[in-house]
Amino acid sequence: MRPSGRAPDQLRPIRFTRGFTRHAEGSVLVEYGDTRVICNATVEERVPPFLKGKGRGWVTAEYGMLPRATHERMGREAARGKQSGRTQEIQRLIGRSLRAAVNLEGLGERQITVDCDVIQADGGTRTAAISGGYVALRDAVASLKARRQLKRDPMFGSVAAVSVGIYKGVPVLDLDYLEDSAAETDMNVVMNEAGGFIEIQGTAEGHAFRGEELDGMLALARQGIAEIIQAQQKALEG
Amino acid sequence: MRPSGRAPDQLRPIRFTRGFTRHAEGSVLVEYGDTRVICNATVEERVPPFLKGKGRGWVTAEYGMLPRATHERMGREAARGKQSGRTQEIQRLIGRSLRAAVNLEGLGERQITVDCDVIQADGGTRTAAISGGYVALRDAVASLKARRQLKRDPMFGSVAAVSVGIYKGVPVLDLDYLEDSAAETDMNVVMNEAGGFIEIQGTAEGHAFRGEELDGMLALARQGIAEIIQAQQKALEG
Amino acid sequence: MRPSGRAPDQLRPIRFTRGFTRHAEGSVLVEYGDTRVICNATVEERVPPFLKGKGRGWVTAEYGMLPRATHERMGREAARGKQSGRTQEIQRLIGRSLRAAVNLEGLGERQITVDCDVIQADGGTRTAAISGGYVALRDAVASLKARRQLKRDPMFGSVAAVSVGIYKGVPVLDLDYLEDSAAETDMNVVMNEAGGFIEIQGTAEGHAFRGEELDGMLALARQGIAEIIQAQQKALEG
Amino acid sequence: MRPSGRAPDQLRPIRFTRGFTRHAEGSVLVEYGDTRVICNATVEERVPPFLKGKGRGWVTAEYGMLPRATHERMGREAARGKQSGRTQEIQRLIGRSLRAAVNLEGLGERQITVDCDVIQADGGTRTAAISGGYVALRDAVASLKARRQLKRDPMFGSVAAVSVGIYKGVPVLDLDYLEDSAAETDMNVVMNEAGGFIEIQGTAEGHAFRGEELDGMLALARQGIAEIIQAQQKALEG
Amino acid sequence: MRPSGRAPDQLRPIRFTRGFTRHAEGSVLVEYGDTRVICNATVEERVPPFLKGKGRGWVTAEYGMLPRATHERMGREAARGKQSGRTQEIQRLIGRSLRAAVNLEGLGERQITVDCDVIQADGGTRTAAISGGYVALRDAVASLKARRQLKRDPMFGSVAAVSVGIYKGVPVLDLDYLEDSAAETDMNVVMNEAGGFIEIQGTAEGHAFRGEELDGMLALARQGIAEIIQAQQKALEG
Amino acid sequence: MRPSGRAPDQLRPIRFTRGFTRHAEGSVLVEYGDTRVICNATVEERVPPFLKGKGRGWVTAEYGMLPRATHERMGREAARGKQSGRTQEIQRLIGRSLRAAVNLEGLGERQITVDCDVIQADGGTRTAAISGGYVALRDAVASLKARRQLKRDPMFGSVAAVSVGIYKGVPVLDLDYLEDSAAETDMNVVMNEAGGFIEIQGTAEGHAFRGEELDGMLALARQGIAEIIQAQQKALEG
Repeated sequence: MRPSGRAPDQLRPIRFTRGFTRHAEGSVLVEYGDTRVICNATVEERVPPFLKGKGRGWVTAEYGMLPRATHERMGREAARGKQSGRTQEIQRLIGRSLRAAVNLEGLGERQITVDCDVIQADGGTRTAAISGGYVALRDAVASLKARRQLKRDPMFGSVAAVSVGIYKGVPVLDLDYLEDSAAETDMNVVMNEAGGFIEIQGTAEGHAFRGEELDGMLALARQGIAEIIQAQQKALEG
Repeated sequence: MRPSGRAPDQLRPIRFTRGFTRHAEGSVLVEYGDTRVICNATVEERVPPFLKGKGRGWVTAEYGMLPRATHERMGREAARGKQSGRTQEIQRLIGRSLRAAVNLEGLGERQITVDCDVIQADGGTRTAAISGGYVALRDAVASLKARRQLKRDPMFGSVAAVSVGIYKGVPVLDLDYLEDSAAETDMNVVMNEAGGFIEIQGTAEGHAFRGEELDGMLALARQGIAEIIQAQQKALEG
Repeated sequence: MRPSGRAPDQLRPIRFTRGFTRHAEGSVLVEYGDTRVICNATVEERVPPFLKGKGRGWVTAEYGMLPRATHERMGREAARGKQSGRTQEIQRLIGRSLRAAVNLEGLGERQITVDCDVIQADGGTRTAAISGGYVALRDAVASLKARRQLKRDPMFGSVAAVSVGIYKGVPVLDLDYLEDSAAETDMNVVMNEAGGFIEIQGTAEGHAFRGEELDGMLALARQGIAEIIQAQQKALEG
Repeated sequence: MRPSGRAPDQLRPIRFTRGFTRHAEGSVLVEYGDTRVICNATVEERVPPFLKGKGRGWVTAEYGMLPRATHERMGREAARGKQSGRTQEIQRLIGRSLRAAVNLEGLGERQITVDCDVIQADGGTRTAAISGGYVALRDAVASLKARRQLKRDPMFGSVAAVSVGIYKGVPVLDLDYLEDSAAETDMNVVMNEAGGFIEIQGTAEGHAFRGEELDGMLALARQGIAEIIQAQQKALEG
Repeated sequence: MRPSGRAPDQLRPIRFTRGFTRHAEGSVLVEYGDTRVICNATVEERVPPFLKGKGRGWVTAEYGMLPRATHERMGREAARGKQSGRTQEIQRLIGRSLRAAVNLEGLGERQITVDCDVIQADGGTRTAAISGGYVALRDAVASLKARRQLKRDPMFGSVAAVSVGIYKGVPVLDLDYLEDSAAETDMNVVMNEAGGFIEIQGTAEGHAFRGEELDGMLALARQGIAEIIQAQQKALEG
Repeated sequence: MRPSGRAPDQLRPIRFTRGFTRHAEGSVLVEYGDTRVICNATVEERVPPFLKGKGRGWVTAEYGMLPRATHERMGREAARGKQSGRTQEIQRLIGRSLRAAVNLEGLGERQITVDCDVIQADGGTRTAAISGGYVALRDAVASLKARRQLKRDPMFGSVAAVSVGIYKGVPVLDLDYLEDSAAETDMNVVMNEAGGFIEIQGTAEGHAFRGEELDGMLALARQGIAEIIQAQQKALEG
């Protein structure tokens, strides 16, 4: 039934390639099938003005797409002179999700910026960015630990994300572009390794969705995220 | 337990004042307690470029706050030269929510813009804007019907929104500013008159939230939105 | 002769509603007939860079219109990314006019910003903003006095403004939109309670105006402003 | 008494050099003493969108200053990415003033843009720009007449401008920078050759000014503008 | 002598990976040693306004860097709201260089945009972008030929680029970052397969360079470009 | 053969008028035939952030054109809200070229900004700006010396620039607009008084150029720049 032939509860192949570029403290290429996002985590010994002198750190994210990551070329945001509402919404979501995994006091007065740049888009770029950004963040924190700049581990646990939706009346996991553009409901779910919710964003594209449909989608998300967290762990141990 | 002395499942006083300003086709002052938002719906005989010649209309929203709607003065977005990510996120949410109530084919090739301007903020401005924007939209559509410019009613049903959250460990309905800034979880829910979900946006501010907490919040939202939809109907009949 | 049926020297009903919103140190809804402007005065314990360390304060103003304050919807300045020349011209005029009523040394190193936001426009928005802004400014100064943060009263006197013009060959007072768009000459006059001129801005829209016409308009302005200053005093005592 | 040693009713030397640059249809260097402004009038066979198809033309103005036209270098507006409120206010004033001299129907569907660029500033740049812009505009219209593109002369009459003020308690004509920065009142007056007022903009810098002071300043302006109009005529005949 | 141990006339390993992403008509990852640039060529059936209706096509380029392509994170241009002067200079250079290889009449009324995005920078990003952009452009043209949309081949010949410089007094080929930041002279050379110059841009960083030094650098460039053109051919045949 | 009747190796009349405006520390009108550029050098007792506390100064340049410096009016960059890529490229070139003549340590912690504003364009504006900017820079340095604010002369030598090109198959010197728009190759050359190259920027507009053509152009540039440097010296002594 799914264009890709996947079962409703089947993820696309998920891959995390660490050390993808050489300058960033954490650099990960994350792939959810044909969706490919470079996640680079940068450590800087400064915090934003609102945190100065408070003994706490900050984690933030920025998001972008290469102009031809998509089927049709999209104008370059740098050339148009501003980031779209969609871009800003996504980077705010990534930042909030990653902060949920970090004890900001434990980080000290430093900022980690996670840049998520989509080089190929096939649906689910924001969820891939969160899951890949988490791995890059862990590597950046590890580089601080290796240089003995942290007293204790500032990471609380894992964070991963996946999209779920109602496609042709059936709840499905990890929508690709073909499904995404035809889905009746589209929901992005961010969870931690204990199955707690960090963020839920669900939108009815066609008709409003019912409580049972919501429950079905959340069950798929729970299972998918458990698998993605396993893949993250494996990559981090590799 | 709540700073306002309300019961956990108690809304603030909800008021819709129609005809608040005289130029707009629909003009509503919506109040959720001390949160006050002017919602003006404008009908224009044009559609955005991507819809030209397709026989369909469009509904969109814009959101703003007077600089001193808040405790501290916030810089005017027009003076800073751009809308914040928060503003864009909110106006995209309002637009999506209102479109869920409209048959865009039935509207014809015209656009309705719903401007939501917060003149006093005390938490829940985006949910008030959706509920008030719906009433303004209905009045704008009524003005088209009165001028016999529509063949059939393009409205599907009602749309209303409310926030829910976990405050001091307890699910509560319709958070005011004091609760909002201390809540462990904050969720905005948009529903229709049939109890279907149009949008769910939940964020863990402190710890991740569990499935039971989610269920508790959604139950409160369902009840609150039913009351708000009644208030909308009453205002529209008044 | 006037569309509204008013006598040439007759003001529209002028109203000042203090305490219109609850966060600002001074908050006034001013109405010149159907023109309605929210004037919020904010006190901040900082001054602009060019005044730092000079022991003087500053008073400034910002001006905006809700997109549908007018007959046709005007694009939101925050969305277009800049304030129009008209907006900047008006807010500079309001700021200069209000500063004429304040001893900036007496204010200490603090800034008062008066935000004037038009929620309904029917001609004369800038003059209403000046007169209403003055009342808001007085309330903001009163809040400083109440907290014993001023050694002496920094207010010199009153400031009020009104428009005058030549409409169908006759000098008239306080033009509404219909008159404004057809007037041959349009002049905004700002005066103090002693009848001194603070600002005169007169523009020939049709033919150039003669000295006698100027004298006729100034006489109307003098009388109108005296009435407005009375209304301000009454509101401030109320 | 005046820093320059001039009598209160004495203009600075006024010069108009036509044909200052070679590409513009009208190109004039205007000098009011040490204030030097290049005024270039450009004819284009198009009108702004709001005038399309209405059979009328348009006259508009733009204003700029070289960064080091002033005592201290001012940041380049092109580099800062926007024109200041002062710049916009001035160019709107120049445009309105010049339009007062033109029958826009007589111009046909074309636009004349008058660029006024200050290369050296010593007070009175906006009034010099208006007087010089008028000469450039006349030359641009003459070039249209020479090419037989106008049925009749679209010019109504002359326009010139001068500043007046109260300096050390005395009304003075044509303030230079030293006077301008110390004046109690500063007024810009635009008149036509018949002594009619096109624009009056007076601002009390120190105390409010009285009716007699206003009359004294206007008398000086009337005399000064008559002299400037003579100089314009002489330049245009030369 | 060179930090990398290379001989003065030795290129870094040059690699072209075609089909790097799947949406673009031409997609190439180009590597000059550790410098890695994604070059995506997009075909669009439109031309810029100045070419409309002239029967000719257009080739243009855009350039960007991921924020962490460099040793230190650089602010994202989309977030800062404008492209730097350096970015604009580079993308203009790439566009001019690629147009030198194309008969724009032969392309028909269509535009090819070559997006060059640096994912890892180690000196020479603009020269790598030109050489890689050429391969992507060829693939994009091939896709048009395959769809029989071109009457004849619009490509004139090959284009490739390399940097040369004076490092510690010796002319060297293809500078990496360490050399680039210490070079006395830095020159970018763009040539075609016949050894003709398309662009030369040389800058003395330390002392001015002499005619013999220029000759030495140009000789190295000629040899290096011949090798790069061979690598391009091999990649295009592969 | 040349439209102007000049011999291939003949410069246009070159003039430097010092003291052109009165506020700048160095103010020069430079003319290359009909190309006229005002170069104003401003000394400020501050350096850009990246140089703070390093005991070194900075020299930078900005470039602009009056809107009607050209045959057709070009939109004002301040009004469009950004500087074009061409403008940024040119001002970066002028800045680099002038810095090549200055010992920045010798300048102390101060910045000299050279504003180059084209009032009439006829080809070669950037080369005229460099040559004129050098004279203005020398005058600004002289003003510092006169005020005994420099321990030693921070100027290394002279800098001048000229364009060369291939026009109708023949190398020519100092192209005017007619030649520039028809040239097959266009090259800007910046040199010092010892015949060393500071910058070479050559672009093939039509076919690629050969080594012999490059040599021919460079020989012309060398001779032309020697003449311009003589003219600079004469002006500086005058």
